[in-house]
Amino acid sequence: VLAGGAGTRLWPASTADRPKHLLELVGEGTLLQQTLDRLGDHDLFEAPIIVCADGQSEAIVEDALASRLIVEPMPRGSAAAIALAASAVAPDTVLLILPSDHHLANVHPLLDAVRRALPVAREGLLVTFGICPGRPETGYGYIVAGKAISNGIFEAQSFVEKPDVATAEQLLRTGTAYWNSGMFLFRAEAFLDELERHAAAINSAARNAMAAAVADGSRLRPASAPLEKCPATSIDYAVMEHSDRIAVVPVDLDWSDVGSWAAVYELAAKDADGNVVGEGSRAIDSRNCLIRSEGPKVVAIGVEDLVIIATADGVIVVPRSESQRVREAAETPRSDS
Amino acid sequence: VLAGGAGTRLWPASTADRPKHLLELVGEGTLLQQTLDRLGDHDLFEAPIIVCADGQSEAIVEDALASRLIVEPMPRGSAAAIALAASAVAPDTVLLILPSDHHLANVHPLLDAVRRALPVAREGLLVTFGICPGRPETGYGYIVAGKAISNGIFEAQSFVEKPDVATAEQLLRTGTAYWNSGMFLFRAEAFLDELERHAAAINSAARNAMAAAVADGSRLRPASAPLEKCPATSIDYAVMEHSDRIAVVPVDLDWSDVGSWAAVYELAAKDADGNVVGEGSRAIDSRNCLIRSEGPKVVAIGVEDLVIIATADGVIVVPRSESQRVREAAETPRSDS
Repeated sequence: VLAGGAGTRLWPASTADRPKHLLELVGEGTLLQQTLDRLGDHDLFEAPIIVCADGQSEAIVEDALASRLIVEPMPRGSAAAIALAASAVAPDTVLLILPSDHHLANVHPLLDAVRRALPVAREGLLVTFGICPGRPETGYGYIVAGKAISNGIFEAQSFVEKPDVATAEQLLRTGTAYWNSGMFLFRAEAFLDELERHAAAINSAARNAMAAAVADGSRLRPASAPLEKCPATSIDYAVMEHSDRIAVVPVDLDWSDVGSWAAVYELAAKDADGNVVGEGSRAIDSRNCLIRSEGPKVVAIGVEDLVIIATADGVIVVPRSESQRVREAAETPRSDS
Repeated sequence: VLAGGAGTRLWPASTADRPKHLLELVGEGTLLQQTLDRLGDHDLFEAPIIVCADGQSEAIVEDALASRLIVEPMPRGSAAAIALAASAVAPDTVLLILPSDHHLANVHPLLDAVRRALPVAREGLLVTFGICPGRPETGYGYIVAGKAISNGIFEAQSFVEKPDVATAEQLLRTGTAYWNSGMFLFRAEAFLDELERHAAAINSAARNAMAAAVADGSRLRPASAPLEKCPATSIDYAVMEHSDRIAVVPVDLDWSDVGSWAAVYELAAKDADGNVVGEGSRAIDSRNCLIRSEGPKVVAIGVEDLVIIATADGVIVVPRSESQRVREAAETPRSDS
């Protein structure tokens, strides 16, 4: 379970100290708790390993009592985070890699897909789970499926980073393109072999960091020095887009990366005016707004299609359609008014 | 100086504990400080008397060291507040009544008008100061001037409460209608005589409350019991609209009652995008917005013509054109979302 993200797209609720996966954004519990709840089938899963950032480990321990924590001394991207986990287990362990900050409406299609993919993963392929795309979303990456390997499992033909609308529409028309969910299944050594082949510096940094790791209760603290020199990049850039040992398993899943306040709005129950209003706040004569506060009481009067999020530290006001721009607010303030 | 208002139109900045006249809304200093600064000519004025609410007297003392305070045990409207002050001074004292929460760009036209009006006030008329109206404002009351009493001083012919647009436009066309500024000049006993004539219950309540008043340093605390039975109403309703001893002195004054966030916006210096952005807040790709915070850092992205005000306790988001509706936010929350 990858829990190293900081998250600037959900400012002011998400901050470096309290990243997206530690927020209650959809339904009950934090996104991390919900992710861990998906791993409750002990016939299928061993105790989870959470790779998290140093400053967040205290908060995460509350959510993850029965888990092992690998505490990264510094953020180095998902490739290194996964390499640390893969270096911490027996080489033939099959790892299911899950981001900790996504939403699934129902876990069963994913569990079915994991069971289906297990034989292929055991054979040494790196399995990605591709979400059947419901719309030509430009905010996600796509995986294009090629030849069938077995029933419902395909070779990955290519990866397409966040496309423009025309490209996204064309991808949907092919019927063989899937959203890259960031969820993977593979044998630890199969991943590390491919990492050695395509990004050897990351593999050796992770291996050396784990060789000198210090145990601290349920926490394992990889050594800093090797990671300082480790390239910071994603598993997609480091391995998936280069390896010829990738399989894709399509999953029909009501899935979201909860990547913006607009996504939080879409996932929430609306009132009769189309508003999503958190406890203590009010919308008067307003339509289709998302209003949440953990601090001051927010009152909106006579506005439409706005996102208004408040904490004791910050307030963002932005049209829902532009809510991906919230990361601009999380940046260091400039005097550009 | 009348400083008893609570102010719900500038929520969340104004609250019962911290009313509008104690806020820094326009330029330097609170509106009360600015009001007291207008009385610095000691040839013209004695030390001010401030009539204030009990809960606010501590905060007011900081602004008003050289003043006498009359601390109302409960709010009873401007008629009673003025009656308390008029009962506290020698009968032939000429009182200049000033609201503490208005904005004047320049005090000199007012001081000139006060000097002009003094002889008429000494003769026993109740003088109102009428602001030359710059637009057919529907948020103000109007005074219609009648026959000239002397140079630049007229009998008040009638009072018009907040008119509709058509009436306001018609009033402006007459050339003899002025905004009712809530500023008055009269001999204490002349006012109390007219109060006795038109609202005797207020006069006797104020007189009895002052007869049993308790001194407390610079503060005078009128007795509660008589005021409990005192009608709560404005000087306009109680006296001005009924008396035939009213004079109006037109003043050409850049004046505002700072009655809404839209008024605060109008009075402030704008940046190149037409925004008024308080310290610590930011407007990105936004136009013609008023953004202020005393608490959380506010960031607005891609919005126009909005008022966004934040404190540690509350946040309001409302179109500038509807900012008079802010009082709805200050009301007790209901579950109407």
